[in-house]
Amino acid sequence: MKFYYHLLSQPSRALYIFLKLNNITAEFIIIDFPNGDHLTDEFKEINRFQKVPCIVDDDGWKLAESIAILRYLMSKYKNIPDHFYPSDIRARAAVDEYLEWQHINTRFGCGVYFQLRKKIGPFAVLSEEALPIFKFLMESTLEAIETLWLRGKKFLCSDEISFADIIAACEIEQARMTGYDLFENRPRLKEWYEKVKETTNPYYDEAHVIVNKIVARSQKAKL
Amino acid sequence: MKFYYHLLSQPSRALYIFLKLNNITAEFIIIDFPNGDHLTDEFKEINRFQKVPCIVDDDGWKLAESIAILRYLMSKYKNIPDHFYPSDIRARAAVDEYLEWQHINTRFGCGVYFQLRKKIGPFAVLSEEALPIFKFLMESTLEAIETLWLRGKKFLCSDEISFADIIAACEIEQARMTGYDLFENRPRLKEWYEKVKETTNPYYDEAHVIVNKIVARSQKAKL
Repeated sequence: MKFYYHLLSQPSRALYIFLKLNNITAEFIIIDFPNGDHLTDEFKEINRFQKVPCIVDDDGWKLAESIAILRYLMSKYKNIPDHFYPSDIRARAAVDEYLEWQHINTRFGCGVYFQLRKKIGPFAVLSEEALPIFKFLMESTLEAIETLWLRGKKFLCSDEISFADIIAACEIEQARMTGYDLFENRPRLKEWYEKVKETTNPYYDEAHVIVNKIVARSQKAKL
Repeated sequence: MKFYYHLLSQPSRALYIFLKLNNITAEFIIIDFPNGDHLTDEFKEINRFQKVPCIVDDDGWKLAESIAILRYLMSKYKNIPDHFYPSDIRARAAVDEYLEWQHINTRFGCGVYFQLRKKIGPFAVLSEEALPIFKFLMESTLEAIETLWLRGKKFLCSDEISFADIIAACEIEQARMTGYDLFENRPRLKEWYEKVKETTNPYYDEAHVIVNKIVARSQKAKL
């Protein structure tokens, strides 16, 4: 299997961690999207949406969308620990609930806030008036994680880590890269984040090498 | 099972059609969210996110997020035709690919364009400069359906209808309600839309009674 990714893409990082943690054999191929390598005709043949992450299986079968890929891998490889995406239908539904909820919440909220602050992406041309709205969306999403998702359990969907936690942690890193303090007045979020890192390391840190450099630069700029 | 919904919510409409079409017994309960009925403490006990659609199963177990609900129902009821959410892992992955892709594409693109035109939702305070950006996002998404998803097959993910088609059709209705002509220069989209309606009627039309009234009003206003 070929895995196309880049460590500046949140869902790429989530799948990178998942593949390494579960020892899934794949050829890891970097698509340098900040330099436009996803826009070539060659890559369009691999993923018609011209985005990372995506996979090409051994027989040439292609799939995009990180969460679709996760589900496919869970069905294909029977030896991956069940807690990442449970087979019990209600436990699975609880993970699905987060995986569907996160797109227009954690992902959109933190991702677009990052883009606006770095002046990249389709919303970059919006004037300064847009920033407070997107900041509000991001903070509402972080509050929902703190007060609704992390209520009465160790991880987002149960007391065991699932793919929901991995993808959530990778998404909130976008806000961290702007110098925003994710954990101020959010003690559950902090505790959970440390637990996700601890459970998935050394791969979490490995996937966040570039992110952590950007965070360090943001912090230096603030001093 | 209790099904909480409102016909002005796109994913509510999709689940409404799916439940009726497959003869799934449920108590249909309208939550009048345009009047704020989703913001009561009582409804917060039913769905902590205070949104529709959501379900409460016979034993009181709760679930939100339309696509998570669809997956749960497919696992629970074994007599639903397989093509709505295939059991074959690759056919299922193809449907999952759309179900994940659509959140920040079809759903966000058409939904926010509708909100901006109707001056509702969190982006309503943005000035006029925002409208072309959101229109561009919506049109890119419709173009992707026309040229990438509907290439070489009758429905979005195969030659048979799946839940992806139902949810996609319900989402693009948002743009139709603004008076926007979805089908101009998009012949495949038109053909597909008619086929989705034909395959799911009378329930499609039943779920779109309010939407069709708004569309008729937009068209009258244009004359």
